[in-house]
Amino acid sequence: MNLLQTTLSQITPQDAAWRAKAKQRLDSLIMPHWALGRLMDLAMDLAGITRSVQPAVARRTIVTMAGDHGVAEEGVSKYPQEVTAQMVRGFAGGSAGINVLARVADAEVVVVDMGVKASLDDLARQGKIFSMRIGPGTQNMARGPAMTRDQAIRAIESGIEIVRASARTDVFGTGDMGIANTTPSTAIAALLTGLPVSSLCGRGTGIDDEQLRKKVDVIERAIAVNQPDPADGLDVLAKVGGFEIGGIAGVVLAAAARRKPVLVDGFISTAAALIAQALAPASADYAIAAHRSVEPGHRAMHERLGKEPLLDLHLRLGEGTGAALAMPLVEAAQRVLTEMATFDEAHVSKAHE
Amino acid sequence: MNLLQTTLSQITPQDAAWRAKAKQRLDSLIMPHWALGRLMDLAMDLAGITRSVQPAVARRTIVTMAGDHGVAEEGVSKYPQEVTAQMVRGFAGGSAGINVLARVADAEVVVVDMGVKASLDDLARQGKIFSMRIGPGTQNMARGPAMTRDQAIRAIESGIEIVRASARTDVFGTGDMGIANTTPSTAIAALLTGLPVSSLCGRGTGIDDEQLRKKVDVIERAIAVNQPDPADGLDVLAKVGGFEIGGIAGVVLAAAARRKPVLVDGFISTAAALIAQALAPASADYAIAAHRSVEPGHRAMHERLGKEPLLDLHLRLGEGTGAALAMPLVEAAQRVLTEMATFDEAHVSKAHE
Repeated sequence: MNLLQTTLSQITPQDAAWRAKAKQRLDSLIMPHWALGRLMDLAMDLAGITRSVQPAVARRTIVTMAGDHGVAEEGVSKYPQEVTAQMVRGFAGGSAGINVLARVADAEVVVVDMGVKASLDDLARQGKIFSMRIGPGTQNMARGPAMTRDQAIRAIESGIEIVRASARTDVFGTGDMGIANTTPSTAIAALLTGLPVSSLCGRGTGIDDEQLRKKVDVIERAIAVNQPDPADGLDVLAKVGGFEIGGIAGVVLAAAARRKPVLVDGFISTAAALIAQALAPASADYAIAAHRSVEPGHRAMHERLGKEPLLDLHLRLGEGTGAALAMPLVEAAQRVLTEMATFDEAHVSKAHE
Repeated sequence: MNLLQTTLSQITPQDAAWRAKAKQRLDSLIMPHWALGRLMDLAMDLAGITRSVQPAVARRTIVTMAGDHGVAEEGVSKYPQEVTAQMVRGFAGGSAGINVLARVADAEVVVVDMGVKASLDDLARQGKIFSMRIGPGTQNMARGPAMTRDQAIRAIESGIEIVRASARTDVFGTGDMGIANTTPSTAIAALLTGLPVSSLCGRGTGIDDEQLRKKVDVIERAIAVNQPDPADGLDVLAKVGGFEIGGIAGVVLAAAARRKPVLVDGFISTAAALIAQALAPASADYAIAAHRSVEPGHRAMHERLGKEPLLDLHLRLGEGTGAALAMPLVEAAQRVLTEMATFDEAHVSKAHE
C-alpha cells in the first residue's frame, strides 16, 4: 500500500463512547443545561476525536499551502499570478495576515510550496518554508486536466508528510495561497455538492460582474472538457483541483488518521476537505469548520460536510486566517470540558424539576 | 455634579479622524480589499474609541456583577434564588464558566456583589469579590418599583467606581449573575425598543411553555404597574431593572468616558447597555457586542444599539462568558491594524484596475 492508501485505511469515525463520557460531564457542569451551546458540542467532538476527556490542545500548527493555477490565464482573478510567490515571501517574513492572527492563536505557521510558478528555493534553503513542489503551477483546467492522477496522489501525500513532520501538534489548522484558486475550488464544490456552478461561484478577491460571468463560464468549460467523476475524489482533484488543494486534503486525511482535530479555514480549504471526505467519508469527523466566508458556495459545501462553521466574520482572505481565529474557541471548549466544576463539586443547587 | 453626571458629561462619540487614519492603513494592507471583514471594522472602532492607531488591548478585565431580584418570587426562573450566591462563590473559587473562559482570553475577572440576597461578606473580606451592595435583592417589580431612583443612581455609580479602580485596564468586558434577571432585562428591552414583551421574551435558564406565558404576564404587569418613562433611563432602571444591571450600565458609561472599548456580553449586559445608551447615546460607540444569545429579544436589542454581534454560538449563560470568548477577536483586530504589512512595505503587486 502507498502512503495515501495506508492513511485512508487508518481513518475511523469519532468514538461514540468517548463522546458519551464527555457528554456525561458536560451535562453536570454548573450552568443551565448546555448553556455554552456550540462550545459544548465542540467539546464532545474533541473527546470523540482524541478518545479522551482531557483532549490536548496546547500545541497548534496552521499549515498554509501555496500553489499556482494554470487557469489564471483565463483572467478569473483580479490579481496577477506573481502575487502567489510574493505572498509566500510575506508569510516567510512574518507580516501577512496569517502570521499576525496565528500570534493570537498561539499557533505555529508552517508554509509549504506545493507548486508555485516562481522559484521559492531560497526560502526553502533558509528553512523558512517547506518545498513539496509538484510542478510550477497546474495546467489550465479549462483546456484539459489540471494535473495527472499521479500528481494528485503526490499532492495529497505531501500533505500527509507535513502532518507526519508535525507529529507533536495537538490541533491543526489549514490555509491556502494561490491566485485564482477560488476557481478550481468552485469546480470541486459543484461536482461534490451537485449544485450548479452559477449558484456557488463568487467574486474571490473582488472581481466585477463581467469577470464573474466569465469565471462561471470557465468553470463550466473545465467540467465539460474534463468530465470528472464525482464519485472519485482523486479524479476530481486531478482534473479541476490544485496542488495546494491536494496538499490540504492530505492534511485533513492525516489529521483524521492520527485522531487530531483539524480546523478547516475558508472556501479553498473546505473544497480540500470535500476531496478528503470523498476519499474517506469519516475524515469529516475530524474537521472543524472554522468560519463561513463571503463566497456564496461555502454554505452548501459546509452542508455537504455536515458542518456548521464557528465564525461568520465576512472573511475572504484564506491563508488559514479563519482557522487561526477559531483556535481560541477550541481551547475554550477544551477548558469547559476539563476545568469547570459540576453542581456536586461546587455545591450549587440544581434546577426545579 | 455627582459622579454619574460627571461621567455622562465626559462621553463623546468615537473620533472620526482616528477612524479615518486607521482606514487609510487598513486599505493598504497586503490582502484583497477589506478581506478580513468584520475584524477590520472592529479595528476602525478601536482607533475611533482610543484615539490611536496603536490601540492598547493587552490588559483585559471582565467585570461580573451579581444581584438578586424580588420578582423571582413570581416563579419566573427554573432555579432557586439561592443559586445567585452559590454561583458567586463558584466565581470566587475559580471553577465557573467565566473563570475558565477568562483564561482563554487572558483576562482578569472582577466579581462584584451589587446586591445578592444572602451575605457574601466573607468573600469580600477575603478580597475575592468587591462588595457594592445596594440592598439584599430588588423589590418585586410586578408589584411596584424594583428599587428607588436613588438606588438606581448608586448602582450605576458603583459600576463607574469599579472601572475607576481598574484604571490600568485596556479592554473591559461585562458579565452578570442573578437568578430571574432575564425578566427585568426583557422589560427593559420592551421599553427601550418599543416592541411587545411577547416578541422579546425567552426561556432564560430553560423554563417550559407554561412558565414562559407566566413570565410574559409578569413582565407586562411590571410595566403596567410601574409605567416607566422610556425616555428616562434612570426611571426604567429603577422601576423594572436590577442592581447588577445598573452596575453594568455604569461599567459601559465609565468605559466610554475613559475611551476604552467594552465588550458587552449577553442578554442582561445588553439590557444594561441600552440603559447606558438612554442616559448617554454616544456610550454605544464604545460598546462592542460580543455575541448573540438564544434569547429571542437579543437581536432587537442589538438593532437598537446599532450593533452586529461578533459571535453566534448559541450561548445563554451570561457571567461574561461571551465577552471572554470575543476578547481574542479584539486582540486580532488590533494586531491586523498594527502588525500587518502594506503592499508597498512587502513589495506585493496590487490588483488590476
